[in-house]
Amino acid sequence: MKYELYYWSEIQGRGEYVRLALEEAGADYVDVTRGPRGSGAMMKMMDAGKGTPPLAPPFLKAGKLVIGQTANILLYLGGRHGLAPKTESGRLWVHQLQLTITDLVVEIHDTHHPLGPSLYYEDQKPPAKRRTADFWSERVPKYLGYFEQILEGNGGSYVTGRRLTYVDLSLFQIVDGLRYAFPKHMKAFEDDIPGLVDLHDRIAARPNIKAYLASERRIPFNEQGIFRHYKELDA
Amino acid sequence: MKYELYYWSEIQGRGEYVRLALEEAGADYVDVTRGPRGSGAMMKMMDAGKGTPPLAPPFLKAGKLVIGQTANILLYLGGRHGLAPKTESGRLWVHQLQLTITDLVVEIHDTHHPLGPSLYYEDQKPPAKRRTADFWSERVPKYLGYFEQILEGNGGSYVTGRRLTYVDLSLFQIVDGLRYAFPKHMKAFEDDIPGLVDLHDRIAARPNIKAYLASERRIPFNEQGIFRHYKELDA
Repeated sequence: MKYELYYWSEIQGRGEYVRLALEEAGADYVDVTRGPRGSGAMMKMMDAGKGTPPLAPPFLKAGKLVIGQTANILLYLGGRHGLAPKTESGRLWVHQLQLTITDLVVEIHDTHHPLGPSLYYEDQKPPAKRRTADFWSERVPKYLGYFEQILEGNGGSYVTGRRLTYVDLSLFQIVDGLRYAFPKHMKAFEDDIPGLVDLHDRIAARPNIKAYLASERRIPFNEQGIFRHYKELDA
Repeated sequence: MKYELYYWSEIQGRGEYVRLALEEAGADYVDVTRGPRGSGAMMKMMDAGKGTPPLAPPFLKAGKLVIGQTANILLYLGGRHGLAPKTESGRLWVHQLQLTITDLVVEIHDTHHPLGPSLYYEDQKPPAKRRTADFWSERVPKYLGYFEQILEGNGGSYVTGRRLTYVDLSLFQIVDGLRYAFPKHMKAFEDDIPGLVDLHDRIAARPNIKAYLASERRIPFNEQGIFRHYKELDA
Protein backbone atom coordinates (compact mmCIF):
# COMPACT_ATOMS: atom_id res chain seq x y z
CA MET A 1 0.00 0.00 0.00
CA LYS A 2 1.27 3.45 -0.90
CA TYR A 3 0.55 6.04 1.77
CA GLU A 4 -0.56 9.51 0.76
CA LEU A 5 0.67 12.31 3.05
CA TYR A 6 -1.21 15.58 2.84
CA TYR A 7 0.46 18.69 4.20
CA TRP A 8 1.39 22.22 3.16
CA SER A 9 3.90 22.00 0.34
CA GLU A 10 6.19 24.84 1.42
CA ILE A 11 7.02 24.01 5.04
CA GLN A 12 8.27 21.26 7.29
CA GLY A 13 5.74 22.18 9.97
CA ARG A 14 3.83 19.44 11.72
CA GLY A 15 4.06 17.26 8.64
CA GLU A 16 7.77 16.77 9.28
CA TYR A 17 7.21 14.45 12.25
CA VAL A 18 5.25 12.18 9.93
CA ARG A 19 7.78 12.47 7.09
CA LEU A 20 10.62 11.44 9.42
CA ALA A 21 8.72 8.33 10.52
CA LEU A 22 7.84 7.37 6.94
CA GLU A 23 11.43 7.91 5.80
CA GLU A 24 13.01 5.98 8.68
CA ALA A 25 10.59 3.11 8.02
CA GLY A 26 11.39 3.14 4.31
CA ALA A 27 7.64 3.30 3.71
CA ASP A 28 6.18 3.79 0.27
CA TYR A 29 4.52 7.20 0.32
CA VAL A 30 3.82 10.25 -1.75
CA ASP A 31 3.92 13.80 -0.41
CA VAL A 32 0.80 14.73 -2.35
CA THR A 33 0.84 18.54 -2.44
CA ARG A 34 4.46 18.61 -3.59
CA GLY A 35 3.55 16.58 -6.66
CA PRO A 36 1.40 17.33 -9.72
CA ARG A 37 -1.88 17.20 -7.76
CA GLY A 38 -0.79 20.15 -5.64
CA SER A 39 -2.57 21.77 -2.71
CA GLY A 40 -5.92 21.52 -4.46
CA ALA A 41 -6.01 17.79 -3.73
CA MET A 42 -5.56 18.54 -0.01
CA MET A 43 -8.28 21.18 0.07
CA LYS A 44 -10.67 18.81 -1.66
CA MET A 45 -10.11 16.16 1.01
CA MET A 46 -10.74 18.68 3.80
CA ASP A 47 -13.93 19.97 2.20
CA ALA A 48 -15.37 16.49 1.84
CA GLY A 49 -18.13 17.43 4.28
CA LYS A 50 -18.87 13.87 5.27
CA GLY A 51 -17.00 10.85 6.48
CA THR A 52 -13.97 11.82 8.58
CA PRO A 53 -12.67 15.15 7.29
CA PRO A 54 -9.68 16.50 9.24
CA LEU A 55 -9.86 20.06 10.50
CA ALA A 56 -6.28 20.71 9.44
CA PRO A 57 -3.29 19.00 7.85
CA PRO A 58 -1.23 16.90 8.20
CA PHE A 59 -3.34 13.86 7.45
CA LEU A 60 -2.46 10.50 6.02
CA LYS A 61 -4.44 8.39 3.61
CA ALA A 62 -3.77 4.70 4.20
CA GLY A 63 -6.00 2.70 1.92
CA LYS A 64 -9.52 3.72 2.88
CA LEU A 65 -8.44 5.24 6.20
CA VAL A 66 -7.88 8.99 6.49
CA ILE A 67 -6.03 9.80 9.71
CA GLY A 68 -5.55 13.33 11.02
CA GLN A 69 -3.57 14.86 13.91
CA THR A 70 0.20 14.33 13.86
CA ALA A 71 0.41 12.23 17.02
CA ASN A 72 -2.53 10.09 15.89
CA ILE A 73 -0.81 9.40 12.55
CA LEU A 74 2.33 8.37 14.42
CA LEU A 75 0.28 6.14 16.71
CA TYR A 76 -0.99 4.38 13.59
CA LEU A 77 2.38 4.19 11.82
CA GLY A 78 4.34 3.23 14.92
CA GLY A 79 2.52 -0.05 15.31
CA ARG A 80 2.91 -0.96 11.66
CA HIS A 81 6.55 -0.10 11.09
CA GLY A 82 8.30 -1.14 14.28
CA LEU A 83 8.55 2.44 15.52
CA ALA A 84 6.68 1.79 18.77
CA PRO A 85 6.56 -0.99 21.36
CA LYS A 86 4.08 -3.80 20.82
CA THR A 87 2.66 -3.88 24.35
CA GLU A 88 -0.29 -1.67 25.26
CA SER A 89 1.63 -0.06 28.11
CA GLY A 90 4.54 0.68 25.77
CA ARG A 91 2.35 2.12 23.07
CA LEU A 92 0.55 4.38 25.54
CA TRP A 93 3.84 5.59 27.01
CA VAL A 94 5.32 6.47 23.62
CA HIS A 95 2.10 8.19 22.61
CA GLN A 96 2.09 10.13 25.87
CA LEU A 97 5.59 11.38 25.12
CA GLN A 98 4.55 12.34 21.59
CA LEU A 99 1.61 14.32 22.97
CA THR A 100 4.03 16.11 25.27
CA ILE A 101 6.08 17.01 22.17
CA THR A 102 2.83 18.21 20.58
CA ASP A 103 2.38 20.60 23.51
CA LEU A 104 5.94 21.83 23.07
CA VAL A 105 5.41 22.41 19.35
CA VAL A 106 2.44 24.69 20.10
CA GLU A 107 4.62 26.67 22.49
CA ILE A 108 7.38 26.96 19.89
CA HIS A 109 4.84 28.26 17.39
CA ASP A 110 3.49 30.73 19.93
CA THR A 111 6.92 32.34 20.44
CA HIS A 112 6.35 34.14 17.14
CA HIS A 113 2.53 34.12 17.26
CA PRO A 114 1.49 34.82 20.87
CA LEU A 115 -1.59 36.77 19.76
CA GLY A 116 -2.84 33.93 17.62
CA PRO A 117 -2.38 32.47 14.17
CA SER A 118 -4.48 35.04 12.32
CA LEU A 119 -2.16 38.04 12.71
CA TYR A 120 1.22 38.34 11.00
CA TYR A 121 4.35 38.08 13.07
CA GLU A 122 5.15 41.68 12.12
CA ASP A 123 1.99 42.76 13.92
CA GLN A 124 2.89 41.07 17.19
CA LYS A 125 6.63 41.61 17.65
CA PRO A 126 6.67 43.05 21.20
CA PRO A 127 4.48 40.26 22.67
CA ALA A 128 6.55 37.74 20.69
CA LYS A 129 9.67 39.00 22.44
CA ARG A 130 8.09 38.62 25.85
CA ARG A 131 6.75 35.18 25.11
CA THR A 132 10.12 34.06 23.73
CA ALA A 133 11.90 35.25 26.87
CA ASP A 134 9.58 33.13 28.99
CA PHE A 135 9.93 30.24 26.58
CA TRP A 136 13.69 30.10 27.04
CA SER A 137 13.79 30.81 30.75
CA GLU A 138 10.96 28.48 31.81
CA ARG A 139 9.55 26.26 29.13
CA VAL A 140 12.56 24.87 27.25
CA PRO A 141 14.28 23.81 30.48
CA LYS A 142 11.05 22.18 31.64
CA TYR A 143 10.34 20.22 28.45
CA LEU A 144 13.85 19.34 27.29
CA GLY A 145 14.99 18.72 30.84
CA TYR A 146 12.19 16.19 31.13
CA PHE A 147 13.22 14.31 28.00
CA GLU A 148 16.89 14.48 28.96
CA GLN A 149 16.06 12.94 32.32
CA ILE A 150 14.08 10.09 30.76
CA LEU A 151 16.85 9.43 28.23
CA GLU A 152 19.44 9.37 30.99
CA GLY A 153 17.29 7.07 33.10
CA ASN A 154 17.20 4.63 30.18
CA GLY A 155 20.95 4.53 29.69
CA GLY A 156 20.93 7.07 26.89
CA SER A 157 20.23 4.94 23.84
CA TYR A 158 16.70 5.95 23.00
CA VAL A 159 13.95 7.66 24.93
CA THR A 160 12.03 4.50 25.67
CA GLY A 161 14.98 2.15 25.98
CA ARG A 162 17.09 0.19 23.55
CA ARG A 163 14.83 0.54 20.52
CA LEU A 164 14.18 3.56 18.38
CA THR A 165 10.62 4.93 18.36
CA TYR A 166 8.92 7.76 16.52
CA VAL A 167 9.45 9.91 19.64
CA ASP A 168 13.21 9.82 19.06
CA LEU A 169 12.70 11.01 15.49
CA SER A 170 10.49 13.84 16.72
CA LEU A 171 13.09 14.87 19.29
CA PHE A 172 15.68 15.01 16.51
CA GLN A 173 13.39 17.51 14.79
CA ILE A 174 12.93 19.55 17.97
CA VAL A 175 16.69 19.91 18.49
CA ASP A 176 17.27 20.59 14.79
CA GLY A 177 14.51 23.18 14.66
CA LEU A 178 15.55 25.00 17.83
CA ARG A 179 19.08 25.22 16.44
CA TYR A 180 17.73 26.82 13.30
CA ALA A 181 15.32 29.21 14.99
CA PHE A 182 17.36 30.20 18.04
CA PRO A 183 21.05 29.46 17.36
CA LYS A 184 22.32 31.69 20.18
CA HIS A 185 19.86 30.53 22.79
CA MET A 186 20.37 26.93 21.80
CA LYS A 187 24.15 27.14 21.84
CA ALA A 188 24.02 28.37 25.41
CA PHE A 189 21.53 25.69 26.38
CA GLU A 190 22.97 22.57 24.76
CA ASP A 191 25.36 21.84 27.63
CA ASP A 192 22.29 21.06 29.72
CA ILE A 193 21.03 18.39 27.35
CA PRO A 194 24.02 16.31 26.25
CA GLY A 195 21.89 13.19 25.84
CA LEU A 196 19.43 14.86 23.49
CA VAL A 197 22.22 16.42 21.43
CA ASP A 198 23.84 13.01 21.09
CA LEU A 199 20.48 11.47 20.17
CA HIS A 200 20.01 14.15 17.51
CA ASP A 201 23.37 13.34 15.97
CA ARG A 202 22.79 9.60 15.99
CA ILE A 203 19.38 10.01 14.34
CA ALA A 204 20.86 12.28 11.68
CA ALA A 205 23.44 9.60 10.86
CA ARG A 206 20.96 6.78 10.37
CA PRO A 207 21.08 5.72 6.72
CA ASN A 208 17.47 6.43 5.80
CA ILE A 209 17.35 9.72 7.68
CA LYS A 210 20.73 10.82 6.32
CA ALA A 211 19.58 10.14 2.76
CA TYR A 212 16.31 11.96 3.42
CA LEU A 213 17.98 15.05 4.90
CA ALA A 214 20.27 15.28 1.86
CA SER A 215 17.38 14.93 -0.58
CA GLU A 216 14.97 17.45 -2.04
CA ARG A 217 12.21 15.74 -0.10
CA ARG A 218 13.45 17.60 3.01
CA ILE A 219 12.09 21.13 2.74
CA PRO A 220 14.58 23.66 4.17
CA PHE A 221 13.59 25.52 7.32
CA ASN A 222 12.02 28.89 6.53
CA GLU A 223 9.99 31.69 8.10
CA GLN A 224 6.59 30.24 7.24
CA GLY A 225 6.96 27.13 9.39
CA ILE A 226 6.92 26.37 13.10
CA PHE A 227 10.64 27.02 13.60
CA ARG A 228 11.38 30.54 12.40
CA HIS A 229 14.61 32.40 12.72
CA TYR A 230 14.03 36.01 13.68
CA LYS A 231 17.21 37.69 14.89
CA GLU A 232 15.36 39.91 17.33
CA LEU A 233 13.90 36.87 19.11
CA ASP A 234 17.31 35.24 19.47
CA ALA A 235 19.03 38.25 21.02
CA MET B 1 -9.80 -2.20 39.82
CA LYS B 2 -10.08 1.24 41.34
CA TYR B 3 -8.60 3.96 39.15
CA GLU B 4 -6.61 6.76 40.71
CA LEU B 5 -6.96 10.11 39.00
CA TYR B 6 -4.24 12.66 39.73
CA TYR B 7 -4.95 16.29 38.99
CA TRP B 8 -4.89 19.70 40.66
CA SER B 9 -7.44 19.69 43.46
CA GLU B 10 -8.83 23.19 42.95
CA ILE B 11 -9.78 23.29 39.27
CA GLN B 12 -11.69 21.44 36.59
CA GLY B 13 -8.93 22.09 34.06
CA ARG B 14 -7.81 19.27 31.80
CA GLY B 15 -8.70 16.73 34.45
CA GLU B 16 -12.39 17.42 33.83
CA TYR B 17 -12.42 15.59 30.49
CA VAL B 18 -11.23 12.50 32.33
CA ARG B 19 -13.66 12.97 35.23
CA LEU B 20 -16.60 13.20 32.83
CA ALA B 21 -15.60 9.94 31.16
CA LEU B 22 -15.12 8.15 34.47
CA GLU B 23 -18.45 9.44 35.79
CA GLU B 24 -20.42 8.57 32.65
CA ALA B 25 -18.89 5.08 32.73
CA GLY B 26 -19.76 4.67 36.39
CA ALA B 27 -16.13 3.67 36.92
CA ASP B 28 -14.69 3.11 40.35
CA TYR B 29 -12.17 5.90 40.86
CA VAL B 30 -10.69 8.20 43.44
CA ASP B 31 -9.76 11.82 42.76
CA VAL B 32 -6.55 11.51 44.74
CA THR B 33 -5.54 15.09 45.50
CA ARG B 34 -9.03 15.95 46.74
CA GLY B 35 -8.78 13.24 49.37
CA PRO B 36 -6.59 12.82 52.45
CA ARG B 37 -3.42 12.14 50.43
CA GLY B 38 -3.62 15.61 48.88
CA SER B 39 -1.36 17.15 46.27
CA GLY B 40 1.74 15.68 47.85
CA ALA B 41 0.82 12.27 46.45
CA MET B 42 0.67 13.75 42.95
CA MET B 43 4.02 15.49 43.27
CA LYS B 44 5.60 12.29 44.50
CA MET B 45 4.41 10.41 41.40
CA MET B 46 5.79 13.11 39.09
CA ASP B 47 9.15 13.17 40.81
CA ALA B 48 9.57 9.42 40.56
CA GLY B 49 12.51 10.01 38.22
CA LYS B 50 12.31 6.61 36.61
CA GLY B 51 9.70 4.48 34.92
CA THR B 52 7.12 6.58 33.10
CA PRO B 53 6.73 9.85 34.99
CA PRO B 54 4.30 12.32 33.40
CA LEU B 55 5.49 15.85 32.76
CA ALA B 56 2.20 17.26 34.02
CA PRO B 57 -1.19 16.20 35.36
CA PRO B 58 -3.74 14.85 34.67
CA PHE B 59 -2.57 11.27 34.84
CA LEU B 60 -4.39 8.08 35.68
CA LYS B 61 -3.14 5.10 37.63
CA ALA B 62 -4.77 1.92 36.41
CA GLY B 63 -3.24 -1.00 38.25
CA LYS B 64 0.44 -0.84 37.39
CA LEU B 65 -0.10 1.49 34.44
CA VAL B 66 0.41 5.23 34.81
CA ILE B 67 -1.06 7.08 31.83
CA GLY B 68 -0.50 10.77 31.16
CA GLN B 69 -1.91 13.27 28.68
CA THR B 70 -5.67 13.82 28.72
CA ALA B 71 -6.38 12.45 25.24
CA ASN B 72 -4.19 9.42 25.91
CA ILE B 73 -6.11 8.65 29.10
CA LEU B 74 -9.37 8.89 27.17
CA LEU B 75 -7.96 6.61 24.46
CA TYR B 76 -7.31 4.06 27.19
CA LEU B 77 -10.64 4.49 28.99
CA GLY B 78 -12.70 4.68 25.80
CA GLY B 79 -11.85 1.14 24.78
CA ARG B 80 -12.58 -0.25 28.23
CA HIS B 81 -15.85 1.45 29.05
CA GLY B 82 -17.74 1.53 25.77
CA LEU B 83 -16.95 5.21 25.20
CA ALA B 84 -15.24 4.65 21.82
CA PRO B 85 -15.85 2.44 18.79
CA LYS B 86 -14.26 -1.00 18.75
CA THR B 87 -12.84 -0.84 15.21
CA GLU B 88 -9.37 0.59 14.65
CA SER B 89 -10.68 3.17 12.18
CA GLY B 90 -13.35 4.25 14.68
CA ARG B 91 -10.89 4.50 17.53
CA LEU B 92 -8.48 6.59 15.46
CA TRP B 93 -11.28 8.90 14.31
CA VAL B 94 -12.54 9.52 17.86
CA HIS B 95 -8.98 10.09 19.08
CA GLN B 96 -8.34 12.50 16.21
CA LEU B 97 -11.38 14.52 17.26
CA GLN B 98 -10.21 14.51 20.88
CA LEU B 99 -6.81 15.82 19.79
CA THR B 100 -8.59 18.59 17.92
CA ILE B 101 -10.38 19.45 21.16
CA THR B 102 -6.96 19.41 22.87
CA ASP B 103 -5.80 22.05 20.40
CA LEU B 104 -8.88 24.14 21.12
CA VAL B 105 -8.30 23.87 24.88
CA VAL B 106 -4.80 25.34 24.46
CA GLU B 107 -6.28 28.24 22.52
CA ILE B 108 -8.92 28.80 25.20
CA HIS B 109 -6.18 28.89 27.83
CA ASP B 110 -4.15 31.30 25.72
CA THR B 111 -6.98 33.85 25.60
CA HIS B 112 -6.01 34.81 29.15
CA HIS B 113 -2.35 33.76 28.92
CA PRO B 114 -1.05 34.77 25.48
CA LEU B 115 2.41 35.55 26.84
CA GLY B 116 2.76 32.14 28.40
CA PRO B 117 1.83 30.30 31.56
CA SER B 118 4.53 31.83 33.77
CA LEU B 119 3.13 35.36 33.98
CA TYR B 120 -0.05 36.27 35.82
CA TYR B 121 -3.10 37.26 33.80
CA GLU B 122 -2.89 40.71 35.39
CA ASP B 123 0.49 41.19 33.73
CA GLN B 124 -0.77 40.43 30.24
CA LYS B 125 -4.19 42.03 29.97
CA PRO B 126 -3.75 44.03 26.74
CA PRO B 127 -2.38 41.07 24.73
CA ALA B 128 -5.11 38.89 26.28
CA LYS B 129 -7.72 41.27 24.87
CA ARG B 130 -6.21 41.07 21.41
CA ARG B 131 -5.90 37.31 21.49
CA THR B 132 -9.48 36.96 22.74
CA ALA B 133 -10.80 39.13 19.90
CA ASP B 134 -9.08 36.85 17.39
CA PHE B 135 -10.29 33.79 19.25
CA TRP B 136 -13.92 34.78 18.86
CA SER B 137 -13.71 36.15 15.34
CA GLU B 138 -11.63 33.35 13.83
CA ARG B 139 -10.96 30.37 16.04
CA VAL B 140 -14.27 29.58 17.72
CA PRO B 141 -16.15 29.62 14.39
CA LYS B 142 -13.47 27.39 12.89
CA TYR B 143 -13.41 24.76 15.65
CA LEU B 144 -17.05 24.72 16.73
CA GLY B 145 -18.23 25.07 13.14
CA TYR B 146 -16.23 21.95 12.34
CA PHE B 147 -17.82 19.91 15.13
CA GLU B 148 -21.28 21.26 14.30
CA GLN B 149 -20.82 20.16 10.68
CA ILE B 150 -19.77 16.66 11.69
CA LEU B 151 -22.67 16.35 14.12
CA GLU B 152 -25.11 17.50 11.46
CA GLY B 153 -23.62 15.10 8.92
CA ASN B 154 -24.28 12.25 11.35
CA GLY B 155 -27.91 13.09 11.90
CA GLY B 156 -27.27 15.00 15.11
CA SER B 157 -27.28 12.27 17.75
CA TYR B 158 -23.60 12.09 18.65
CA VAL B 159 -20.44 13.30 16.98
CA THR B 160 -19.44 9.92 15.65
CA GLY B 161 -22.93 8.58 15.00
CA ARG B 162 -25.57 6.86 17.09
CA ARG B 163 -23.40 6.03 20.09
CA LEU B 164 -21.98 8.32 22.72
CA THR B 165 -18.18 8.62 22.89
CA TYR B 166 -15.80 10.50 25.14
CA VAL B 167 -15.65 13.23 22.50
CA ASP B 168 -19.30 14.09 23.13
CA LEU B 169 -18.56 14.43 26.84
CA SER B 170 -15.63 16.72 26.06
CA LEU B 171 -17.77 18.88 23.79
CA PHE B 172 -20.29 19.22 26.63
CA GLN B 173 -17.45 20.63 28.70
CA ILE B 174 -16.36 23.02 25.92
CA VAL B 175 -19.86 24.48 25.56
CA ASP B 176 -20.32 24.62 29.33
CA GLY B 177 -16.95 26.29 29.83
CA LEU B 178 -17.37 28.86 27.07
CA ARG B 179 -20.74 29.79 28.56
CA TYR B 180 -19.07 30.37 31.91
CA ALA B 181 -16.04 32.28 30.61
CA PHE B 182 -17.65 34.30 27.85
CA PRO B 183 -21.42 34.51 28.47
CA LYS B 184 -21.97 37.47 26.13
CA HIS B 185 -19.85 36.14 23.28
CA MET B 186 -21.36 32.70 23.64
CA LYS B 187 -24.93 33.95 23.72
CA ALA B 188 -24.38 35.72 20.41
CA PHE B 189 -22.71 32.68 18.91
CA GLU B 190 -24.97 29.83 20.00
CA ASP B 191 -27.41 30.31 17.11
CA ASP B 192 -24.61 29.10 14.84
CA ILE B 193 -24.21 25.79 16.68
CA PRO B 194 -27.70 24.47 17.46
CA GLY B 195 -26.52 20.86 17.26
CA LEU B 196 -23.76 21.34 19.82
CA VAL B 197 -26.05 23.22 22.18
CA ASP B 198 -28.56 20.39 21.95
CA LEU B 199 -25.79 17.85 22.50
CA HIS B 200 -24.66 19.79 25.59
CA ASP B 201 -28.16 19.68 27.04
CA ARG B 202 -28.63 15.98 26.34
CA ILE B 203 -25.28 15.14 27.96
CA ALA B 204 -26.14 17.24 31.01
CA ALA B 205 -29.37 15.28 31.39
CA ARG B 206 -27.81 11.82 31.32
CA PRO B 207 -28.32 10.21 34.75
CA ASN B 208 -24.66 9.72 35.67
CA ILE B 209 -23.59 13.13 34.40
CA LYS B 210 -26.57 14.87 36.00
CA ALA B 211 -25.74 13.28 39.36
CA TYR B 212 -22.07 14.21 38.96
CA LEU B 213 -22.79 17.83 38.10
CA ALA B 214 -25.00 18.16 41.17
CA SER B 215 -22.39 16.59 43.44
CA GLU B 216 -19.42 18.04 45.26
CA ARG B 217 -17.18 16.02 42.99
CA ARG B 218 -17.79 18.65 40.30
CA ILE B 219 -15.51 21.56 41.16
CA PRO B 220 -17.15 24.90 40.26
CA PHE B 221 -15.60 26.94 37.45
CA ASN B 222 -13.19 29.55 38.78
CA GLU B 223 -10.42 31.91 37.71
CA GLN B 224 -7.58 29.45 38.21
CA GLY B 225 -8.72 26.99 35.55
CA ILE B 226 -8.83 26.94 31.75
CA PHE B 227 -12.20 28.66 31.46
CA ARG B 228 -11.97 31.97 33.29
CA HIS B 229 -14.55 34.69 33.40
CA TYR B 230 -12.95 38.10 33.08
CA LYS B 231 -15.51 40.78 32.27
CA GLU B 232 -13.07 42.80 30.21
CA LEU B 233 -12.45 39.83 27.88
CA ASP B 234 -16.16 39.29 27.33
CA ALA B 235 -16.98 42.89 26.39
